[in-house]
Amino acid sequence: MRRKVTTIDVATGASATRPDTLTVEEPLELRVNGSPLTVTMRTPGHDIELVHGFLLSEGIIRSAEDIALARYCEGAVVSGESGFDENTYNVIDVTLAAGVTPPAASATRSFFTSSSCGVCGKASIEQLRAQSAFDVRADRMEIAAKVVAELPDALRGEQRAFEKTGGLHAAGLFTADGEALVVREDVGRHNAVDKVVGWALQNGRVPGVGCVLVVSSRASFELTQKAIMAGIPCLAAVSAPSSLAVECAEDAGMTLMGFVRGTRLNVYAGAHRVTTT
Amino acid sequence: MRRKVTTIDVATGASATRPDTLTVEEPLELRVNGSPLTVTMRTPGHDIELVHGFLLSEGIIRSAEDIALARYCEGAVVSGESGFDENTYNVIDVTLAAGVTPPAASATRSFFTSSSCGVCGKASIEQLRAQSAFDVRADRMEIAAKVVAELPDALRGEQRAFEKTGGLHAAGLFTADGEALVVREDVGRHNAVDKVVGWALQNGRVPGVGCVLVVSSRASFELTQKAIMAGIPCLAAVSAPSSLAVECAEDAGMTLMGFVRGTRLNVYAGAHRVTTT
Repeated sequence: MRRKVTTIDVATGASATRPDTLTVEEPLELRVNGSPLTVTMRTPGHDIELVHGFLLSEGIIRSAEDIALARYCEGAVVSGESGFDENTYNVIDVTLAAGVTPPAASATRSFFTSSSCGVCGKASIEQLRAQSAFDVRADRMEIAAKVVAELPDALRGEQRAFEKTGGLHAAGLFTADGEALVVREDVGRHNAVDKVVGWALQNGRVPGVGCVLVVSSRASFELTQKAIMAGIPCLAAVSAPSSLAVECAEDAGMTLMGFVRGTRLNVYAGAHRVTTT
Repeated sequence: MRRKVTTIDVATGASATRPDTLTVEEPLELRVNGSPLTVTMRTPGHDIELVHGFLLSEGIIRSAEDIALARYCEGAVVSGESGFDENTYNVIDVTLAAGVTPPAASATRSFFTSSSCGVCGKASIEQLRAQSAFDVRADRMEIAAKVVAELPDALRGEQRAFEKTGGLHAAGLFTADGEALVVREDVGRHNAVDKVVGWALQNGRVPGVGCVLVVSSRASFELTQKAIMAGIPCLAAVSAPSSLAVECAEDAGMTLMGFVRGTRLNVYAGAHRVTTT
């Protein structure tokens, strides 16, 4: 999206107004079997992947076949400039396959929201472990540290919109050889990962055996959760991990790397998968 | 939180294991009048401010007096190492004052979740405008671009934990003269802003007349929303704004600046408040 912006240089006092490219952010409402489940602020594009990834992360689906139909809501229209109603493309209706239990009416963005009084990091981790269909601990992949060190550059190389706006997070799924399987961008880092996981689900890459998820951001509990739910044994972040992300990775037997910058990287959990020779 | 981390330098092949300081991330469950409203992953500390700011941002309260009581849930306990139950300090009970309407049972993290089919950015903006008790457009503050350019450094100067972990977002409320009123940090940028807004609410600074909110991150719709709900006329972000943040700021008559770095900054909306002489 192009907007006028005024750039000021306080050193010289100069100011100039020019058109600038902005990261597009719009709400996406997800309805499951007719009931609104959540609204996320996302960058439009790959929305069907996004809802697949989101529903897998939340434990509502376990395979692509668990979704019978996913499409933009026909009734979601605004008055267009043409004078005719136009679809907003901001509401997606998902119909679950027969036998798949829809989320409870009280379900929200975070599946542990419903946890009882006494919520703590440990309870969240235990709930997560119970929830995932896959055991990443059992994944025998190994990855060379020198391959990992090159992943952030590879991720940036695949990003389409970042150069123009500087406002997008990226996530990518790579093989242990450093081959990019998919890279997605979004104004929200959890959405970028949901899009990647959704792609993986639709392309037979869940569980993500032998793969590494690379994120341009920090590694939070939420991103660790998404990797574990998708059976991805390895997460590499450009920036810092949180305490709960590290505990969660350790508990699940996942490899977690952070501050992957230049020739250096930190391994916070699952160091046995990272080779240095 | 201290954890062991293995640092690998792929240029030399050297690896070393040392203790590292991690950003603490734990869930905080917010209950209002006894009903769970939301869980956010946050960095513990200033939790009472956080829930004040969150409830103001969501339009549930309009003043500090709208909260009769806010305290950690007594029943939220885990078995401690001492053998006795310990409070998790991860659940806060808020009791609203008489006459304040509690959130609907369907309310979740984003107040526009309940919007009908046809959700679009425009609907979100209109709903926001209707919701805020304050008119930031009427705020006649002016701020010198050279003051704005120094705010990110001032913010970093006030950050306590960042230097150690590199994993925290910061938000601060400053006067037009560049004086820091409050700076808060969190693993989530929306939480950092909620803590700042909650402080402002408890210290007679809502509406934030003549103030500028400074964030170490990008400027999303959500952050713009929080500033408008708190009556803060000016938002300055170290990184990029999103399209919806700019539209939202323009619609509300708020000044929005981004890419505030070194001697340069961009003004995306409300340029009349930014002086260059």
